[in-house]
Amino acid sequence: MTKRSTTPSRSRREPGSIPPGLRLFAIPGLPEIRKGEDLAERIAAAARTEGLSFEGGDVLVVAQKIVSKAEGRVVSLVTVKPSAKAQELAAHLKKDSRAIEVVLQESRRILRSDRVLITETHHGFVCANAGVDHSNVPGDDMVTLLPRDPDRSAELLAAALHRKTGKRIAIIISDTFGRPWRLGLTSVAIGASRLPVLRDLRGTRDREGKPLTATILAAADELAAAAGLLMGKSEGTPAVIIRGYRFKPASEKAASIIRPADEDLFR
Amino acid sequence: MTKRSTTPSRSRREPGSIPPGLRLFAIPGLPEIRKGEDLAERIAAAARTEGLSFEGGDVLVVAQKIVSKAEGRVVSLVTVKPSAKAQELAAHLKKDSRAIEVVLQESRRILRSDRVLITETHHGFVCANAGVDHSNVPGDDMVTLLPRDPDRSAELLAAALHRKTGKRIAIIISDTFGRPWRLGLTSVAIGASRLPVLRDLRGTRDREGKPLTATILAAADELAAAAGLLMGKSEGTPAVIIRGYRFKPASEKAASIIRPADEDLFR
Repeated sequence: MTKRSTTPSRSRREPGSIPPGLRLFAIPGLPEIRKGEDLAERIAAAARTEGLSFEGGDVLVVAQKIVSKAEGRVVSLVTVKPSAKAQELAAHLKKDSRAIEVVLQESRRILRSDRVLITETHHGFVCANAGVDHSNVPGDDMVTLLPRDPDRSAELLAAALHRKTGKRIAIIISDTFGRPWRLGLTSVAIGASRLPVLRDLRGTRDREGKPLTATILAAADELAAAAGLLMGKSEGTPAVIIRGYRFKPASEKAASIIRPADEDLFR
Repeated sequence: MTKRSTTPSRSRREPGSIPPGLRLFAIPGLPEIRKGEDLAERIAAAARTEGLSFEGGDVLVVAQKIVSKAEGRVVSLVTVKPSAKAQELAAHLKKDSRAIEVVLQESRRILRSDRVLITETHHGFVCANAGVDHSNVPGDDMVTLLPRDPDRSAELLAAALHRKTGKRIAIIISDTFGRPWRLGLTSVAIGASRLPVLRDLRGTRDREGKPLTATILAAADELAAAAGLLMGKSEGTPAVIIRGYRFKPASEKAASIIRPADEDLFR
């Protein structure tokens, strides 16, 4: 195949029939975020500095870490008194009992404590250590917690960015979760605003015209995962713009991705 | 924020310090794929027709369905004689006993059979119905199976595309899998060639300089998920080019994403 240009052209398609491409831009240069800071302003300013402008229909994926910091969801382990249960688990897991105590406080249920602590958070997310995390927090004894209500955090951010930019921007707040059966973490959506989080294709038909019976796509998780490709863990780009994703504005919550416990075959 | 252009420029950054963006292009216009067809040629031709050209370093994500069809991994249920076990499961699940029989043949172990059949395939993948699928196959009684060795399929496709285009293109073969705890399907990598499938960040440091201890990212799954955003189930775009993803060429297999059963807390 001859290389025609670095940007593929699609001139042979009729206008309007062009299958949409996606573009993803990391927003670099975000400063360390502190409690009470205006995250929308910080993100807008960092984008502006880069010459990046938002467009209506963009999806902005923001790593949980900076949302938690802005909301003051940071705990100094120096202030934590581990319970007897935390001490017992910490001895077994060879972990800091104060960190375990924080995990227990953030959890409504422990699923596994054999090698790692897999818990169900008060939101209903199932993940390691209830999302309590040491990385990318200043100070040796500091941990971040997940936002208290990540869907609300997403909506507040969407509203603030709308005020600042005049653009309707959908928001996903992402975190990296592990999963059974497959190694490695992937970014998933823990908060969402102004986009459909699940794409229900039931009732539509496949290419052969056969009805699709059991096909609900976790679109918000796929958007989070796509953004995760540009976030890494240490790259300092906790905000990524996804442009060109076609969706109908919706007011679904990322909480609706949580599989109800009584329908879950593996909980 | 003032809109400056539809394509964000990053002129204020030093050359080389620009954080890489990603672009994703669906390759439309692929014909129905039949057994024995040259998939590389079909994909290259469809891309050419669209004016899309491959570049070195591209990641091409291809839906399992067309790989299976090209490899003849299609079964007519008319030819299947259900075993007693398949009949029993089919009665319980209210499914076609012949389809259940195919699932059992593709599985080495059943994990759950309460409401849906979750099995471990001979490859080691844990998914619903061992990846056996009715959708997007011509004929009412036809189902597709997963490729026998999806990593080999990926490598063969990479080699063929290299011969045809002169470009080194990494390949991911994707399928949509469900998962515990969260609703909806996401695209994951079941085959891979010429790229790292797991990004091991252990030993690297976070932004604060703290060593990252337990961070392995499932990069191939995030790439598959990103491509999934342009695939849908019925959109007829089972091939997506991802451009701008930075990686070191590697010869890791998607099979290495499978969590060993004895390390799996949920199997």
